Amino acid sequence: MNKPIGVIDSGVGGLTVVHELMRQLPREKLIYLGDTLRCPYGPRTAKEIIRFTWEMVDFLLTKDIKMLVVACNTATAYTLEELQKKLTIPVVGVIQPGARAAIKSTLNNHIGIIGTEGTIRSNAYSNALSMLKPDLYTISLACPTFVPIVEKGILSGSLAERTVEHALLPLKKFDEMDTLILGCTHYPLLKEVIQQVVGPEITLISSSEETARETSTILQINQLLNDETESFYHQFYTTGDVASFTSLTKRIFNSSIDNLKSVAIEKAVI
Amino acid sequence: MNKPIGVIDSGVGGLTVVHELMRQLPREKLIYLGDTLRCPYGPRTAKEIIRFTWEMVDFLLTKDIKMLVVACNTATAYTLEELQKKLTIPVVGVIQPGARAAIKSTLNNHIGIIGTEGTIRSNAYSNALSMLKPDLYTISLACPTFVPIVEKGILSGSLAERTVEHALLPLKKFDEMDTLILGCTHYPLLKEVIQQVVGPEITLISSSEETARETSTILQINQLLNDETESFYHQFYTTGDVASFTSLTKRIFNSSIDNLKSVAIEKAVI
Repeated sequence: MNKPIGVIDSGVGGLTVVHELMRQLPREKLIYLGDTLRCPYGPRTAKEIIRFTWEMVDFLLTKDIKMLVVACNTATAYTLEELQKKLTIPVVGVIQPGARAAIKSTLNNHIGIIGTEGTIRSNAYSNALSMLKPDLYTISLACPTFVPIVEKGILSGSLAERTVEHALLPLKKFDEMDTLILGCTHYPLLKEVIQQVVGPEITLISSSEETARETSTILQINQLLNDETESFYHQFYTTGDVASFTSLTKRIFNSSIDNLKSVAIEKAVI
Repeated sequence: MNKPIGVIDSGVGGLTVVHELMRQLPREKLIYLGDTLRCPYGPRTAKEIIRFTWEMVDFLLTKDIKMLVVACNTATAYTLEELQKKLTIPVVGVIQPGARAAIKSTLNNHIGIIGTEGTIRSNAYSNALSMLKPDLYTISLACPTFVPIVEKGILSGSLAERTVEHALLPLKKFDEMDTLILGCTHYPLLKEVIQQVVGPEITLISSSEETARETSTILQINQLLNDETESFYHQFYTTGDVASFTSLTKRIFNSSIDNLKSVAIEKAVI
């Protein structure tokens, strides 16, 4: 089954999912679309988020994908159920895998969730958590300043530290928390700064890593794993500026991804 | 969907999966069957393992289960594909979840696998690993002495330490290993001793915890999660002696499981 997996995100955050998909499923071909032009989705209305997401999905469906990964928490919060109902291919979002990993991780049932305003407002994480395990204590916090700094490539240093420290102040009151969900695919790029601010005793859950793992499960049970050995290259699309997308991609992937040269980055017209 | 999940094992090892299922999916009702009478499965022939497993499955099918968890690595190695083909309910084994977690965990692609003779002889783990990620270095080691001591309740102390230390000696040659799969559901009960012997820098993967998480994924995508709020009790069956099964169950669950009193343990006739 040598068809590609489609991955969508509002910008570059979903590349953290791509990175994990490449590592955990190196035999799978990926097609990525980042809606950089209209990023961030966090402060947008539900109606806009739904329309933008469907535009991205329709673009990827023309590429004959075998599975769709909604690598954006905001888009997952507002569209996952509808996508799962309407599409004939498996669709995985980033919220349920993150919720499941947090439940596995917590020892005292106190879980924090940080995400965009849209994700937090939707209560998607608290709903996903309580559906699986009702006896949890949760706190949710919107961090609207994180996506803009990540999209500018500010992933460490004093500005990143001050931004994170200030945003996470309200979490201090929830002092029993032992697990914190990074409920936005941009946030793993700030993971080191976030860990430093919350302290080493709190387990950070990256919805990106967990989503890659769940994608592996779903491909396998649907017998969709690639069983061919032909060589292939991944394709990356952005709705925004190609040069800045390329530069951010290099920064995110560091030097650990060898096939970056062979990647075709085109400007998607949607 | 208030039907139970069926869980089978050759003995008490599968209770480590049950423990995690209770923790990660507290709303789900479980029916467990341990074939204590014929345990261990490790040294048995493929034909015997397949016959015994089908006898357990047939028993649980009379209980109207909505999903089957094969919580025994040896049984998974020899029967999973056949069970998945022949049963109309979802079937999950313990090998693929463990393989997936090891791939997520390893940073240098050097993975060790310990299991029963039957599991190791089947190459089920190395096959599962290489299907997902071909560029891994693996070492497999059978530890036939572990299941018998666990079934006797010897989980710590000098006998457990000497047994583990002696069995794991051949792993010393594979000194780049950063991840070790506990490829038998009995082994998490020896986790502390194993960690002490291999050292803190090696990540131990418990197929039990990972299987519980994958069960959660599979229930959710098949829309089989329990959405009713009626109270229920779990049911435990053994083919062996009820008194010693009860005593081992208490030891394994420690005091952390509150509803042990309400559990019905009966002798299964198969």
